Amino acid sequence: MLSKSIIPSTVNADLQKERDGASFNSEEFAAWWAGGPEQLKFKRSVKEYMYKDINLDERANFHYLSHEDICEFAVKNSINVAKKLRQLQAERNPGGSEYWPTLYEEPELAGLHLAGNPFGVMYLVVVKALKAQCTAEQYEEFGKRLEQFEVCAAYAQTELGHGTYLRGLETRADFDRDTDEFVLNTPTISAYKWWPGGLGHSANYSLVMAQLYIDNQLKGPHLFYVQVREEGTHEPRPGVHIGEIGKKMGFLGVNNGFLGMKDVRIPRNRLLMRHVQVHRDGTYVKSPVDVLTYFAMVSTRCLIVRIIYVALAATATIATRYSAVRRQSPIDPTLPEVQIIDHVTQQLKVFPEIATSMAHRLCFDYLWDLFNVTSKDIDQGRYERLPELHALSCALKVISSTDATRGTERLRLACGGHGYLTSSNLGNIYAHMSASCTYEGENTVLLLQIGRFLIKSWRAAQKGDPLPPTARYLAEVQRNPEFGAWTGSWENMTKAMQFAAANKTRLAFQSLSKRLDKGESEEVAASHTGIELTQAAELHGRAFIFHCFITEITGPKSKTRSPSLNRVLEQLLELYLVNMTLNNMSDILRVVSLTDGDLSKLQTRLETALTKLRPDAVAIVDGFDFIDGQLNSTLGSFDGNAPERIFDAALKAPMNQKSVPKSFHEYLGPFMKSNL
Amino acid sequence: MLSKSIIPSTVNADLQKERDGASFNSEEFAAWWAGGPEQLKFKRSVKEYMYKDINLDERANFHYLSHEDICEFAVKNSINVAKKLRQLQAERNPGGSEYWPTLYEEPELAGLHLAGNPFGVMYLVVVKALKAQCTAEQYEEFGKRLEQFEVCAAYAQTELGHGTYLRGLETRADFDRDTDEFVLNTPTISAYKWWPGGLGHSANYSLVMAQLYIDNQLKGPHLFYVQVREEGTHEPRPGVHIGEIGKKMGFLGVNNGFLGMKDVRIPRNRLLMRHVQVHRDGTYVKSPVDVLTYFAMVSTRCLIVRIIYVALAATATIATRYSAVRRQSPIDPTLPEVQIIDHVTQQLKVFPEIATSMAHRLCFDYLWDLFNVTSKDIDQGRYERLPELHALSCALKVISSTDATRGTERLRLACGGHGYLTSSNLGNIYAHMSASCTYEGENTVLLLQIGRFLIKSWRAAQKGDPLPPTARYLAEVQRNPEFGAWTGSWENMTKAMQFAAANKTRLAFQSLSKRLDKGESEEVAASHTGIELTQAAELHGRAFIFHCFITEITGPKSKTRSPSLNRVLEQLLELYLVNMTLNNMSDILRVVSLTDGDLSKLQTRLETALTKLRPDAVAIVDGFDFIDGQLNSTLGSFDGNAPERIFDAALKAPMNQKSVPKSFHEYLGPFMKSNL
Repeated sequence: MLSKSIIPSTVNADLQKERDGASFNSEEFAAWWAGGPEQLKFKRSVKEYMYKDINLDERANFHYLSHEDICEFAVKNSINVAKKLRQLQAERNPGGSEYWPTLYEEPELAGLHLAGNPFGVMYLVVVKALKAQCTAEQYEEFGKRLEQFEVCAAYAQTELGHGTYLRGLETRADFDRDTDEFVLNTPTISAYKWWPGGLGHSANYSLVMAQLYIDNQLKGPHLFYVQVREEGTHEPRPGVHIGEIGKKMGFLGVNNGFLGMKDVRIPRNRLLMRHVQVHRDGTYVKSPVDVLTYFAMVSTRCLIVRIIYVALAATATIATRYSAVRRQSPIDPTLPEVQIIDHVTQQLKVFPEIATSMAHRLCFDYLWDLFNVTSKDIDQGRYERLPELHALSCALKVISSTDATRGTERLRLACGGHGYLTSSNLGNIYAHMSASCTYEGENTVLLLQIGRFLIKSWRAAQKGDPLPPTARYLAEVQRNPEFGAWTGSWENMTKAMQFAAANKTRLAFQSLSKRLDKGESEEVAASHTGIELTQAAELHGRAFIFHCFITEITGPKSKTRSPSLNRVLEQLLELYLVNMTLNNMSDILRVVSLTDGDLSKLQTRLETALTKLRPDAVAIVDGFDFIDGQLNSTLGSFDGNAPERIFDAALKAPMNQKSVPKSFHEYLGPFMKSNL
Repeated sequence: MLSKSIIPSTVNADLQKERDGASFNSEEFAAWWAGGPEQLKFKRSVKEYMYKDINLDERANFHYLSHEDICEFAVKNSINVAKKLRQLQAERNPGGSEYWPTLYEEPELAGLHLAGNPFGVMYLVVVKALKAQCTAEQYEEFGKRLEQFEVCAAYAQTELGHGTYLRGLETRADFDRDTDEFVLNTPTISAYKWWPGGLGHSANYSLVMAQLYIDNQLKGPHLFYVQVREEGTHEPRPGVHIGEIGKKMGFLGVNNGFLGMKDVRIPRNRLLMRHVQVHRDGTYVKSPVDVLTYFAMVSTRCLIVRIIYVALAATATIATRYSAVRRQSPIDPTLPEVQIIDHVTQQLKVFPEIATSMAHRLCFDYLWDLFNVTSKDIDQGRYERLPELHALSCALKVISSTDATRGTERLRLACGGHGYLTSSNLGNIYAHMSASCTYEGENTVLLLQIGRFLIKSWRAAQKGDPLPPTARYLAEVQRNPEFGAWTGSWENMTKAMQFAAANKTRLAFQSLSKRLDKGESEEVAASHTGIELTQAAELHGRAFIFHCFITEITGPKSKTRSPSLNRVLEQLLELYLVNMTLNNMSDILRVVSLTDGDLSKLQTRLETALTKLRPDAVAIVDGFDFIDGQLNSTLGSFDGNAPERIFDAALKAPMNQKSVPKSFHEYLGPFMKSNL
């Protein structure tokens, strides 16, 4: 009934029409998005090289495999990626590191690790931690071998019963003065290390966070470098109980592992001793720079934001293209069914996510600059901006993971039933995205930390002490609590969001003060004020994003872009600001007087922004410059042949390779026969 | 390191403490929730019988299987369930139907079909459709064999390129007067039937919705009963192209299928002819009762609401128990880490979902009564309440699926990292839940239908025409647009939600009118007003839920319950109303004047409700009366031994059965060696 190749070699006509009708140059967008024409060229050349010879059929069907086969698939894939990146490095710049290992966890290459990269953490976290916390000799001994991939290491901190609260960790390392060793133990089931990526079946070494005891005196959590499996045979070392924690919603091939230890002995120099020391005689020298660990988390969080906005942009690309090629329900009943992108309700599901990805991206840029500035400050021993940077990185991590997770699901649902198919790749993206709400600082925990920063700032403002730039609005609102006139300008909307954040901070501060007055301690009172603190924290983050987004689009950088590109970017900005303002209206209305007419005007602006973006939507997502191998979606390919690709993927499904399934012969057939 | 059985035989002490400290009798709750002591007894006896000899290890590990093996697992399981239900029927009431097939898709038995029931649709939809639309002779021929499970049938309506818009279907059935047959054809790829559960590999028959043509004259979509596979061999019939559509996010074992037909000939009597006829000579007799098809959808939608609230209650049970046994972060830093259920932020994540499940349940009860009343009306030819019932069933389907999907994810995230484990079962529940946003009427499409109902009602009110009871508030608001005083009572909150709904309806009506004035047709204008219409529809549904929930808790039925149970139910009602009111505050503030003090009072009420529910939370979810086999979750078992069960599940994972994985020998080992 069907010819062999059902996928047309041409671009879907509806999609082509969209591209032809755009008001701006998609290539200019792509260059801007990449950070400049040179960066775009670099990115494209890397992707071309890396994605060129991937096995399409194997990729398409990996979800059909058993868990064990998926784990194999992931290990094989990620080793191939490592090999290719090293080859690229050798070909283009031997001795450098801009390809390997820099790009190993690059979000633009995520399409190569469809089931996750079991070795990603090794370069993203372990090597960096070793660099930061080893002595030179230690790094030479441990780090270099990792760089060469001679061994494979995980980062074991979280325990089965212990997460965020580091001081609650139970794994212990006792110094044995007699043998000059540490003895590691897992005293209970809840003390088992749990979650480290790659620990289950791949790693033969691991960084282990354990409570250091000297003469049974607790010195707090420290990092130890522990061999967990034999090199060569890969058998677990004596006293080591290791395995994988079992299947998860996503990251199917990452073999997250568990680790229990019984009297595992390691030499004293396996404690990372750059900032902290245990001497031969058991003398303990405390780290003078605790703040640095904290700083490392900031950088990791920024990188997570990057992973998230790239994934959201990919999802938006899939949903936008699919919305342009899928037809459903006529608008005028005398005419045929329309492209679903013509329904305003569909536009409201899809376009704001394009804008959200962009907003998070531009905040990431801003934050990354701030990170580099602060980094230099720290080198000179100046730590003033660290609390602010910490709060901002937390806020952006929380908001980008929360909004993008919801957005991904909204986009998936906007693709109707087909978004539920594995071949759409939307479920897999969702599973990866939603994990980011939990890892590297659970979102509520981070919001509470921001909340405490806000309370501190609020108190400082009351005393007239100086505030960090992004919290100064708190002092301004204290000085002048009247919002003034609502104008609806972008700056005015930012001010409204700041007032909403300041007001929530005020309310939280009042609640906290009442509780303190009742005799609760600061910590207890803060915990009981948790709901208001998290709300204030979220609004603080939103105000920051508003400010960044506006600055990046309307600031001096706009001069480097063509008027037609700027027009499109401004429309995305307008959509984002109006939509977010409406979504947070209940908090804004508490401090800003908007008339019914003002609110109706915002609704009109929302609908106008959607209408204006309609003709450019496809060209915008084209400008994100994803190749099909990255999106890996039957719904979102560049050629827009969605139905044919959905069908083609189904025909290639393993169970469709025979006409009658085993289950009929074994169960269904005999059962129906017995009922005759 | 570990003894064989790591799961204690005792109940976790923290959980036991919760149960001992409850302010009410969990058994009384259970009887109330079940609909009475007799129903509770019945439900328990069924569950005991059905769940007693399930294979725990096989269940625990099904996610590790390949897609093909999961499909086998599902077929085997669901046949077993059918056998057991028939056995139960035979033992307890031979010839009856209260066990079989009535309970086959019963949500309380969903834990038996962990990968979905490939035969669920057969009894939930196909047999019912045959009953409603076959002549007696046809039902005797087709239906009876299905009842006996001699054959297996699917329901094929949706096509690869066509969903909600029935008139857009492309599959055609041409009447061949010469042979007295219909000839079925799938003219394009987008016309392939797509999605029917069980169609891929199980069904040998299918109901097929196809455009009927007589002498090339279109008569619109009609239902045909088509044999698609040979009985006996199960090979596809000539001209039939059939298979599965491929893996999906959830319902992993349901073998959703595709179907293409090329000149498939069926006898004329395979058109379901109870209400519509094609005579031997090709004369076409139109159905006089189109409304009945529409009525069938109402009943299906109600049943979906039931599936959803049961699943949400199950998820809330898991998260509540886990919150009571997991400890994380001290509140007072001088004391140990607390049960996470003590953190107010955690309470806000978990408790509202308990209340939501209950709210949806009570609205379902209300709607089901209305359904039965309307059903009797219809038997007497009275159709007046049908539009209202349609609008309410759509609203409840949309809101329950939307809120429960988000709620499930919120609960999963509230379980931290462990919620991401397959063994928590939360991801699987989520995948099933989120599908309900799309199937049986995509949510936005349904909201637009409600929106049109509201516009119609608004116009009727303007003309002074009578309105159906649940829409009468629109007329009241038109007569008296001033809300009056905010008192914060439950009734007052309902009124506020109604005013918000009426106001959005007014805004939508104004926008629609402006568009009509500009010359747009009613349909085009309604489509362009889609955003406001969907917003109005949602608020209308929320006002309805408020009203029902209050009535069911505070109405005459409260007399049948003890004061202590009523106190708990009222606290859940209070939490639900306050939380939802706060969540919809931006719409409420447009019509109701709340002072800053009023809003602060609501915040206090929210926190107070959480605090009051805190000691009863575990006992409440115990009252939902789930057994472990239903929850199927390492986090939510009755004994609360979460860490041990998580660990036990990991140890049983297939890859942990050998110490070194294949991937090491094949890829990782050689690679690391080559780098030495």
